[in-house]
Amino acid sequence: MNRRSGAILVLSGPSGAGKSSLIGKITDQIGPTYFSISTTTRPMREGEKDGVHYHFVSIEEFKHEIEQEMFLEYAVVHGNYYGTSLGPVKKALNEGKLVIFDIDVQGHDAVQNRLHDITTSVFITTPTLAELEKRLHSRSTDSEEVIAKRLEMAKREIQRISEYDFLIVNDNLDEASEILVSIAKAARMKIPTLQINEFVQTWEAT
Amino acid sequence: MNRRSGAILVLSGPSGAGKSSLIGKITDQIGPTYFSISTTTRPMREGEKDGVHYHFVSIEEFKHEIEQEMFLEYAVVHGNYYGTSLGPVKKALNEGKLVIFDIDVQGHDAVQNRLHDITTSVFITTPTLAELEKRLHSRSTDSEEVIAKRLEMAKREIQRISEYDFLIVNDNLDEASEILVSIAKAARMKIPTLQINEFVQTWEAT
Repeated sequence: MNRRSGAILVLSGPSGAGKSSLIGKITDQIGPTYFSISTTTRPMREGEKDGVHYHFVSIEEFKHEIEQEMFLEYAVVHGNYYGTSLGPVKKALNEGKLVIFDIDVQGHDAVQNRLHDITTSVFITTPTLAELEKRLHSRSTDSEEVIAKRLEMAKREIQRISEYDFLIVNDNLDEASEILVSIAKAARMKIPTLQINEFVQTWEAT
Repeated sequence: MNRRSGAILVLSGPSGAGKSSLIGKITDQIGPTYFSISTTTRPMREGEKDGVHYHFVSIEEFKHEIEQEMFLEYAVVHGNYYGTSLGPVKKALNEGKLVIFDIDVQGHDAVQNRLHDITTSVFITTPTLAELEKRLHSRSTDSEEVIAKRLEMAKREIQRISEYDFLIVNDNLDEASEILVSIAKAARMKIPTLQINEFVQTWEAT
């Protein structure tokens, strides 16, 4: 009973807060996982691979998938479409995996609306806006214009931290990853409402 | 920021589900904790100690504490008063401890109402009612009448499992305790809303 079903871990937070490093550090400590890969219409960046970092598709293809209701959620950010296809998520849940989403606050909203009973959410951020700006400049993958957009988006997203189950202030990667491991292990223990109702109904009779 | 404040872990579930054994098994694995000791007017059982298992008081004393608003919650069960004094809980939270409550569904309600932002709750039960009955008979600390009352109460409490964050079906003590350790470690990471609001307000400015 306790371990049969999969569950969802949503990670949000500004680009530059260290989500990718954190995920990389904890993956071998938290059991079977499936990292949800987003589908996007934005141009591929240097070093990115189709099917690894994103499923890169054309705007026409993306709109077709919207019409077919194949997205768990989708959003338009900085003029580009980003979305999460339902199929692979359901498959991973059926296999009992912890499905990890790296999505923004809009995506989090959508996941909570559809799958709230098995979802745990974590907002990951730098200690300050100044620190975020510093990190974005030092990794030098983005233009000044993109950095400015990211900072504006971060300011808006920070206002919605209280919608998340947990906040991790990533000022120390070891400490932050230890916290995230604990949260991920507990996240896996969420049981779908349907399964709980079934348990309650049969508890007395069996 | 991440670790400064205390948090609350509520454990509920029928007598006989194995809460005490579970708690005993995990205490050395989950960091600094404070086990909330209830105050009660019920007679002391053989082997129990005042200030260890309960604070045993008279009905007059209990009613006086109610008038002084010294209880986080209290309830009447099987004709006896049970309550949780606020003072030690606040002290332990200020010391950054995980405060563990072993309380019923009414108590859980009260804690959620007052301290929901830092509370994680777990319902612990046997796989079936028949198994609970078997365990209550085999431990032979209760009279037939008390066992019958406990079973009736269990049937009512089971209906409210969905109010809890997690369900643990204790059919294997090792597995159940491993799950509870994960949940307890994550529970400690809950941050009070006040502290989150403060963080959000200063994030941009610092």
